[in-house]
Amino acid sequence: MSTIDSKLVTAEKPRGFADKLGPDAAAEERVVAAVGRVYEKWGFDRLETPAIEYTGALGKFLPDTDRPNEGVFSFQDDERWVSLRYDLTAPLARFAAEEGVNLPKPFRRWQTGPVWRNEKPGPGRFRQFIQCDADTVGSDNPASDAEIIAMSAEALEAVGVPRDGYVFKINSRRILNGVLAGVGLADASAESTRLVVMRAIDKLDRIGVDGVAALLGVGRKDESGDFTRGAQLDAAGVQKVINFVTLATDSRQGVLAGLERLVGDNDEGKAGLKELAGIDAVLSALGVDDSRARIDPSIVRGLEYYTGAVYEAELTLTVGDTGRAVRFGSVGGGGRYDDLIARFTGERVPATGFSIGVSRLVAAQAILGLGDANASAAPVIVLAMDRDRMGDYFAIASELRAAGMRAEVYLGGGGMKAQLKYADKRQARVAIIQGGDELAKGVVTLKDLKLGAEIASKLGEDREAYAKAREQVQQEIPRAQVVAAVQQILAR
Amino acid sequence: MSTIDSKLVTAEKPRGFADKLGPDAAAEERVVAAVGRVYEKWGFDRLETPAIEYTGALGKFLPDTDRPNEGVFSFQDDERWVSLRYDLTAPLARFAAEEGVNLPKPFRRWQTGPVWRNEKPGPGRFRQFIQCDADTVGSDNPASDAEIIAMSAEALEAVGVPRDGYVFKINSRRILNGVLAGVGLADASAESTRLVVMRAIDKLDRIGVDGVAALLGVGRKDESGDFTRGAQLDAAGVQKVINFVTLATDSRQGVLAGLERLVGDNDEGKAGLKELAGIDAVLSALGVDDSRARIDPSIVRGLEYYTGAVYEAELTLTVGDTGRAVRFGSVGGGGRYDDLIARFTGERVPATGFSIGVSRLVAAQAILGLGDANASAAPVIVLAMDRDRMGDYFAIASELRAAGMRAEVYLGGGGMKAQLKYADKRQARVAIIQGGDELAKGVVTLKDLKLGAEIASKLGEDREAYAKAREQVQQEIPRAQVVAAVQQILAR
Repeated sequence: MSTIDSKLVTAEKPRGFADKLGPDAAAEERVVAAVGRVYEKWGFDRLETPAIEYTGALGKFLPDTDRPNEGVFSFQDDERWVSLRYDLTAPLARFAAEEGVNLPKPFRRWQTGPVWRNEKPGPGRFRQFIQCDADTVGSDNPASDAEIIAMSAEALEAVGVPRDGYVFKINSRRILNGVLAGVGLADASAESTRLVVMRAIDKLDRIGVDGVAALLGVGRKDESGDFTRGAQLDAAGVQKVINFVTLATDSRQGVLAGLERLVGDNDEGKAGLKELAGIDAVLSALGVDDSRARIDPSIVRGLEYYTGAVYEAELTLTVGDTGRAVRFGSVGGGGRYDDLIARFTGERVPATGFSIGVSRLVAAQAILGLGDANASAAPVIVLAMDRDRMGDYFAIASELRAAGMRAEVYLGGGGMKAQLKYADKRQARVAIIQGGDELAKGVVTLKDLKLGAEIASKLGEDREAYAKAREQVQQEIPRAQVVAAVQQILAR
Repeated sequence: MSTIDSKLVTAEKPRGFADKLGPDAAAEERVVAAVGRVYEKWGFDRLETPAIEYTGALGKFLPDTDRPNEGVFSFQDDERWVSLRYDLTAPLARFAAEEGVNLPKPFRRWQTGPVWRNEKPGPGRFRQFIQCDADTVGSDNPASDAEIIAMSAEALEAVGVPRDGYVFKINSRRILNGVLAGVGLADASAESTRLVVMRAIDKLDRIGVDGVAALLGVGRKDESGDFTRGAQLDAAGVQKVINFVTLATDSRQGVLAGLERLVGDNDEGKAGLKELAGIDAVLSALGVDDSRARIDPSIVRGLEYYTGAVYEAELTLTVGDTGRAVRFGSVGGGGRYDDLIARFTGERVPATGFSIGVSRLVAAQAILGLGDANASAAPVIVLAMDRDRMGDYFAIASELRAAGMRAEVYLGGGGMKAQLKYADKRQARVAIIQGGDELAKGVVTLKDLKLGAEIASKLGEDREAYAKAREQVQQEIPRAQVVAAVQQILAR
């Protein structure tokens, strides 16, 4: 026996982090692989960047930070501050700036990996999660936004979302800026008011048109009685913004026509309109029609660095029974950020990209029954009846694996009962037994654990009937036929 | 134009970290996927744990730490110290202890992901790298060590290492402990001397038998004149240890016989011998013969937590020309750590596992020409001759993708020359051109860029001959036949 330290360490992971075992871990991997195959086909190259970046290189672009360090995990290394990346966009901007002219441009890349948010832990709120991004750097052509939307739609379908089960909603920050200029919020000094307006619009889904109107004007008292101060627009201003955000219809052309009237001759608004028209044209060429991608002026996106097109993907499938069915909601978002790389280079480098929330998509798969869970099959278990004959048991498992089956030998201590209990916990279908008697006869016993459980649950306490049924559950076969016999049971 | 901050941020990643693009990023992924498929088949379940653990939960087990923080990146979160994991074993121990009886045992898991080492950066020395581990928790049966060795051998072959291109070297810390007891180093007070002995043995490959003997005795002066103090064993003691570490022969049975003589009736040594004999038996049952797995008493492994069997995998293929050929060396290591989980539970939980250094294996693949690079094919490039007809170009790319090809539309600004230069940088084989003339005729021009480059390099400056050859390089085909025609060129 070994020396055990008297001061034991508590076995716990930090709050807000999760372990994932078996199918849960495999599901994220499978989603990323399927999405990545689509992205590769569209000419996007895979990129890996470090988890750690200089804090200054990442910048501060997270919305709604309620923690110190602006929502980022940071620490000092060799007297310089470094941080864990909070998304995959900021590292891409650093990479593109660092590589400079070495990178063929426009540069298309996809990337996946964990990101970290130093948020207050809460139910379902994790501080590490997987993102899967696609971005194009070096093109201001709206075709690059359209391409990413069409490609991401294909990616959603590749993980099992049906064609009528999702919709992309597209808008342009430039049109919003044009509208805000029209209500006297053009200057740099109006920045904080513009932010209040954007946050109000972002709440349309939750608080409705009247709620947004209140937040655009004087302010709004919510159900708990808390008062949120508004943007202080006058009635005409409120109406203009409301007209804008409620323009969404089922037809992209219809929304574009409506926006054209609203934007008037504001330059920024006209530029945004041209951007959306360009996206519409390429989406149509790629067969992405109004039912899969809509223009929706109420989409603003939280991140501060967006400069033009913004877009998000929503699953329109519903969760729950009829009556209390709710939409699953957003599984990804993105947009154009033409100024992010200029933080490093001083020169404007246009860029656009989309990020899929892999964990949310996996949750959607599970809840909505999408795609194929397709986890590794439960293994066949070879019991270890005689510790001196482990080699024999491993040889059986080896033959099963060579025939394509998942197989393992029991490696623990206990007797038959403990071993069958283990097989149950592993949800194994078949157990293979070869004790001394079987060895002498040159046979093995195969046990169909699933059939055994079914019969046992039906027969209850009727021991006599059970004994008879056992013949079906348990069979002795020559050692040489073990592979074929197990295949037969698995095919039952 | 946007407002650019006058204080630019330097575009650099922290020292000791790397970006990986395209084939380099894909190669690691491919290795992990191939290894994981093998591990799943042997009944190992995939586990994901967070990158961040409580510092106390990780413990301090790294060898040769030349930095503060014991080689680990650490910082405070909510007034508790947390660290980035430095391997995948310590998090497994925490997980197994935290899950306790909920986990069916013996518990087999595999896991992959980045780990971080707070080491001084240097050439080829990275502070983030990918590991891929397989461990079995809850079995003290040597069959569990043998299983992991045999399975890892299968994994190496799955990534292209030929059967005669690698060897596993196996030893037991317990035998070494027995030998050390025989030279008066049994007590806890001799711990630091035992460490000096282990470090000396670990250098056998580099400094030879005489060098090790010096380090076991008084000490050794190296080529630079630096003197390293030795373990101060007397001549008989030095000889005993040297006899032990030089026992390795090509036959496992031969080494076992030699060890039996050496170990005598020391209990710890006898237990280690039984352990190695058990591993040998199961390896033989699994068809892993002496040529692929040897018992080598000079293997000690650096990590302090090993308690029994230790093993490592070495590629025996050579790098470089004849004359200066060198072995590629170690690509993974592991062993038995029966006390690690007891840090949490107070109860001994036997465990064993193996870790593949994925980056090293990828480097080996590249240098030794193993496996299939099989990176994404270079894309077909559709040039954007007319910015108003992006939809048409995307429709062409879309058709190519539907036929299984990798295809992209040029999204940048420049004219034909810039676009062809981009296609070159992307190593594209085919460029597709449809300007106004082609559109009017209902055709596209296909350019075989590879053939073009070949002809150009042969013809040099002979413009007349080049003009003739162009007919082969460039062809006009009806728009409707674009997919078939591109497939023909790719098949050339």
